[in-house]
Amino acid sequence: MRLLDFLVGRELANSEAEQDKMTTLEGLPAIGLDGLASSAYGPEAALAILAPLGALGANWLAPITLAILLVLAMLFVSYWQTIRAYPVNGGSYTVATENLGATAGLLAATALMLDYVLTVAVGISAGIGALTSAVPSLHTHTLNLCLCVLAIVTVINLRGTREAGILFAIPTYLFIASLGGLLAFGLGKAMLAGGFPTPEIPAPASKVASESVTLWLLLRAFASGCTAMTGVEAVSNGVGAFRQPSVKYAHRTLAAIVVILSLLLAGIAVLARAYHVGAMDQTKPDYQSVLSQLAGAVAGHGAAYFVTMGSILAVLCFSANTSFVDFPRLCRLVARDGYLPRDFAAPGRRLVNSVGIIWLALAAGALLTAFDGITDRLIPLYAIGAFLAFTLSQSGMAVHWARKCAAKESWGDRARLIVNATGAIATATSLAIILAAKFLEGAWITALAIPCVLMLFKTIKRYYARLDGRLAILAPFTIGDPRPPIVIIPIRDWNRLGERALRCALRMSPEVIALHLSRLEGPDIEEGAEKLRLRWRDDIEPALRALRRPAPRLVQVDAPFRGMNSPILKFIARTREQNPGRAIAVVIPALAEAHWWELPLHKRRARRLQGVLSREGGANLAVVIVPWSLEDPQPGNVLDSPPEPK
Amino acid sequence: MRLLDFLVGRELANSEAEQDKMTTLEGLPAIGLDGLASSAYGPEAALAILAPLGALGANWLAPITLAILLVLAMLFVSYWQTIRAYPVNGGSYTVATENLGATAGLLAATALMLDYVLTVAVGISAGIGALTSAVPSLHTHTLNLCLCVLAIVTVINLRGTREAGILFAIPTYLFIASLGGLLAFGLGKAMLAGGFPTPEIPAPASKVASESVTLWLLLRAFASGCTAMTGVEAVSNGVGAFRQPSVKYAHRTLAAIVVILSLLLAGIAVLARAYHVGAMDQTKPDYQSVLSQLAGAVAGHGAAYFVTMGSILAVLCFSANTSFVDFPRLCRLVARDGYLPRDFAAPGRRLVNSVGIIWLALAAGALLTAFDGITDRLIPLYAIGAFLAFTLSQSGMAVHWARKCAAKESWGDRARLIVNATGAIATATSLAIILAAKFLEGAWITALAIPCVLMLFKTIKRYYARLDGRLAILAPFTIGDPRPPIVIIPIRDWNRLGERALRCALRMSPEVIALHLSRLEGPDIEEGAEKLRLRWRDDIEPALRALRRPAPRLVQVDAPFRGMNSPILKFIARTREQNPGRAIAVVIPALAEAHWWELPLHKRRARRLQGVLSREGGANLAVVIVPWSLEDPQPGNVLDSPPEPK
Repeated sequence: MRLLDFLVGRELANSEAEQDKMTTLEGLPAIGLDGLASSAYGPEAALAILAPLGALGANWLAPITLAILLVLAMLFVSYWQTIRAYPVNGGSYTVATENLGATAGLLAATALMLDYVLTVAVGISAGIGALTSAVPSLHTHTLNLCLCVLAIVTVINLRGTREAGILFAIPTYLFIASLGGLLAFGLGKAMLAGGFPTPEIPAPASKVASESVTLWLLLRAFASGCTAMTGVEAVSNGVGAFRQPSVKYAHRTLAAIVVILSLLLAGIAVLARAYHVGAMDQTKPDYQSVLSQLAGAVAGHGAAYFVTMGSILAVLCFSANTSFVDFPRLCRLVARDGYLPRDFAAPGRRLVNSVGIIWLALAAGALLTAFDGITDRLIPLYAIGAFLAFTLSQSGMAVHWARKCAAKESWGDRARLIVNATGAIATATSLAIILAAKFLEGAWITALAIPCVLMLFKTIKRYYARLDGRLAILAPFTIGDPRPPIVIIPIRDWNRLGERALRCALRMSPEVIALHLSRLEGPDIEEGAEKLRLRWRDDIEPALRALRRPAPRLVQVDAPFRGMNSPILKFIARTREQNPGRAIAVVIPALAEAHWWELPLHKRRARRLQGVLSREGGANLAVVIVPWSLEDPQPGNVLDSPPEPK
Repeated sequence: MRLLDFLVGRELANSEAEQDKMTTLEGLPAIGLDGLASSAYGPEAALAILAPLGALGANWLAPITLAILLVLAMLFVSYWQTIRAYPVNGGSYTVATENLGATAGLLAATALMLDYVLTVAVGISAGIGALTSAVPSLHTHTLNLCLCVLAIVTVINLRGTREAGILFAIPTYLFIASLGGLLAFGLGKAMLAGGFPTPEIPAPASKVASESVTLWLLLRAFASGCTAMTGVEAVSNGVGAFRQPSVKYAHRTLAAIVVILSLLLAGIAVLARAYHVGAMDQTKPDYQSVLSQLAGAVAGHGAAYFVTMGSILAVLCFSANTSFVDFPRLCRLVARDGYLPRDFAAPGRRLVNSVGIIWLALAAGALLTAFDGITDRLIPLYAIGAFLAFTLSQSGMAVHWARKCAAKESWGDRARLIVNATGAIATATSLAIILAAKFLEGAWITALAIPCVLMLFKTIKRYYARLDGRLAILAPFTIGDPRPPIVIIPIRDWNRLGERALRCALRMSPEVIALHLSRLEGPDIEEGAEKLRLRWRDDIEPALRALRRPAPRLVQVDAPFRGMNSPILKFIARTREQNPGRAIAVVIPALAEAHWWELPLHKRRARRLQGVLSREGGANLAVVIVPWSLEDPQPGNVLDSPPEPK
């Protein structure tokens, strides 16, 4: 417990919930990391597709970026509206559920969840990939480094969302300042030079063009570049993480993310053209990322270069944090609707859902391990979930406005409908392009996983629905048979365990049967059966007769197979037959282990018997555990045996 | 369960115990395998030490074998007497305990147990070593093959001792017949040739002598050769495995083992000299074992050779069986004396102690894994335990006869005293030589492990002694406070779980308190508190008033940290303070999972609460589990809610 306190901090009370929520200042690092980090790989992914065009490639980046910024602007407006219309957690899930039906909502949730897991894996592996390409000696440790970063992000998030925001503020703001400053400086230089600046370190010459421009190539470049938009939906999915008024803080955070991201993307597109920067082959040893080439061209390999590259690396690594904020919140919503086990709905000791965080970490860890922590193998699986959720969320909002318009005509709502419908078409088109372009490379895995997970969720829901149906009570309360239960105590030797159990049984009911099983220890062991019978005759029966109470019966039953469970079950069945309608209670004296090392020293028969009775004991059976611990107060204790019974 | 039935057979009843016991016919394979297999490595081990003497080495084997046979004869007489005097399991342990005291007995038991584990590891690794030297392509799989054989022997022994004896009869009797026949044939040839037979395939020429004969060298050769005697004690340790009259069957089995082993050892010694066979370097690729060289020299590489070598291989592999017969029986005795957890004393489904068998397999598996399944690394740890147990057992028998003589002078007992005392001195000397010769190579591990395990046993005994002391009852039975307990039911929503728990509580006591914990699900969840209060006012209280019974109180308690346990513990403490002397029962409605896949779907709060209450609930507390399963009969069931309460 001490270790847990140290790692994730003390338990937070319900009353402290509001204090753990975020303002824009913490929201941008906690929830915006993924969106901002996209600028480090989105343009690069587009340029990689454009590489066969040779030197011409960099020129095509600008129009593609423009298209991306258009979609981004639509998403921005759309999510702005979503946040206002649904100021709760789980944006896309809620929007799709309310407007398109439960299955569409669940589909959005599934898609988002898979994408969150992939975001964690891709972000961390990309960050560590950048690190190992800077320090090649670390290359053999790629997977371990990935898992280390994952563990760090996990523990920080178990401490609470706000703490993560505060901890990640430094790298985030450093990233914005350094990359933004670098781009501004480069743009200034380019303007002064009339559009043809002299690079400090020229980017390597592009290869000779091997293909000419086709629409399919441009579409694929656009599809790859769309990864730059992942993370934009994050704010709308985690509105509940913001302090009151949460809509205001969420709006501000969304605006900050989109504006900064747009500026970065635009700056990169313009400078890539001015400095003739293209994507290099990642498998070659002299590989440099697009941002590294740009930074070198603008500022040379000085301090500014290293600060910028370091902050990019940190932001990539920690971009996983966005998923850690949203995934548990989405899980909580889905669990409260009955599609996930109920554990996912419970707030943990720091008021964030620890179960969701841990499952996210486990899934991402499994994914990283399966793909050896290599980004390129993960990328084809990625972005499908996000764009499916985008599309569903946009369509849902479109339906939302259409309904509003149908109820009461309004120009504003009509405009909003158009924005969202256009958005839905744009994101659906992007999704189709992404799926087609990446299907064979790995997108099929995601396309297969989404329906499987969806079906699992529906199965869980069905189970809970059946459970709730069986649990529901319609009839008014009746006490049933009010007679005290017939109490059965399995007893082996006469010791404090048995004594305490017998006392407990006698308090509950006048009808007590002590059950002695013989030959439990095998064929060749002499047992205390005779001793027990004498004890009953000479001690217990007289003691109860003196109190004018019925004495407990002692019954001996053979255990031919040395197990307690089946003879006891048989005895219960017989007792039930002879006493129809009566409730039965089995009192089990149990040794409670005070220390873990006592576990192997006891047979835990009590625990096993309890399990069997719970499962197979039949209706109207109660199992009474009378715990006794070696550390209990000594015999003679006032509570346990008062000197004079009343 | 079906799988278990298939693997280890149906459960045996106590009454079937005698049927599972052995006669000599099954006893020789089941219990004698280790002793007989020793002939395959004992002479080789001695010859390996004699190798520096060159061609002269083989000549010295005969006197060393003679010395070994002398000690063996002494052991034979001694164990013959032991079996008659102590016709029970655990020979050395019982003898040493009764005559030399508990610590000496425990020391013998510890030594034997470690030796049993080593016998398994050494036997299997030697067998697999022989196999891989015959089929070198299997060499990379050494460890896996070892673990496979271990698994097979384990499963066979879980089926019962007699079945193991029947299954291992074929390789055992084939081994005796083929190796015996081969030796007899070789001896015949040698006699016909006047002591100088012509080998079919001559053994490789010995190396030139690099050392001359010293006493230390001969002593070391003797010490190594003593491994040929391991396994002789096995019969006396497992007398209980024989059918009645067990002494007769045990005596016969012991005699059979010793006679056959002596003949084999003598034959090997004579033939090794006649055919000039010496030990070869095991690390060299052209290595051949002594028996392989002998078989080649006598019979050539024909069918007889391969049958003999195959049966040796099988016997080595399955020599582990002896340990599987004796180890669990020894464990059972030690556990019944309180030095081992009580699980070790319980007969399993096939009347053998499955726990002991599984622990033996786990320990041997760990040892094989740690030493990569290589015999040479294991050998130095071996034989120390056996000779320590021999010495303690012989000394114990000597004391036994000395006491008898002191009570009543008798020539027979005096002769027996002399035999056992000489045996004790001989085995003690052998032990000292073995320890000195092998100490640095690995014997120190065993020398260190024995006292550690001994101390562990004594700690366990102390724990049980303390437990038994606390459990013992001296005072006569008093019922204590006879009032029914105050019953507390933690209740969340009004459903069948709560209803059933409430009915159960009302049958046990008129004083029932329903405890509703609010804010269990976090700060932002609306709860059914108000609904529950209404249900109480409008349904439950009137129902009980109609029966003129006190209504259960509904109490609301805040759970600021979302855990049930500490608010409930606090409430119990408060109730106890207000009602001194009263017993308290907590009724927990619990969902019993019918299928394993339901486990992750429930929070198992009931189970956790039960654990905490057992450990920290204080004295005079009972935990009542009211199980409810989704598979339970539908509401309206007669038992659960009879139409008219009496």
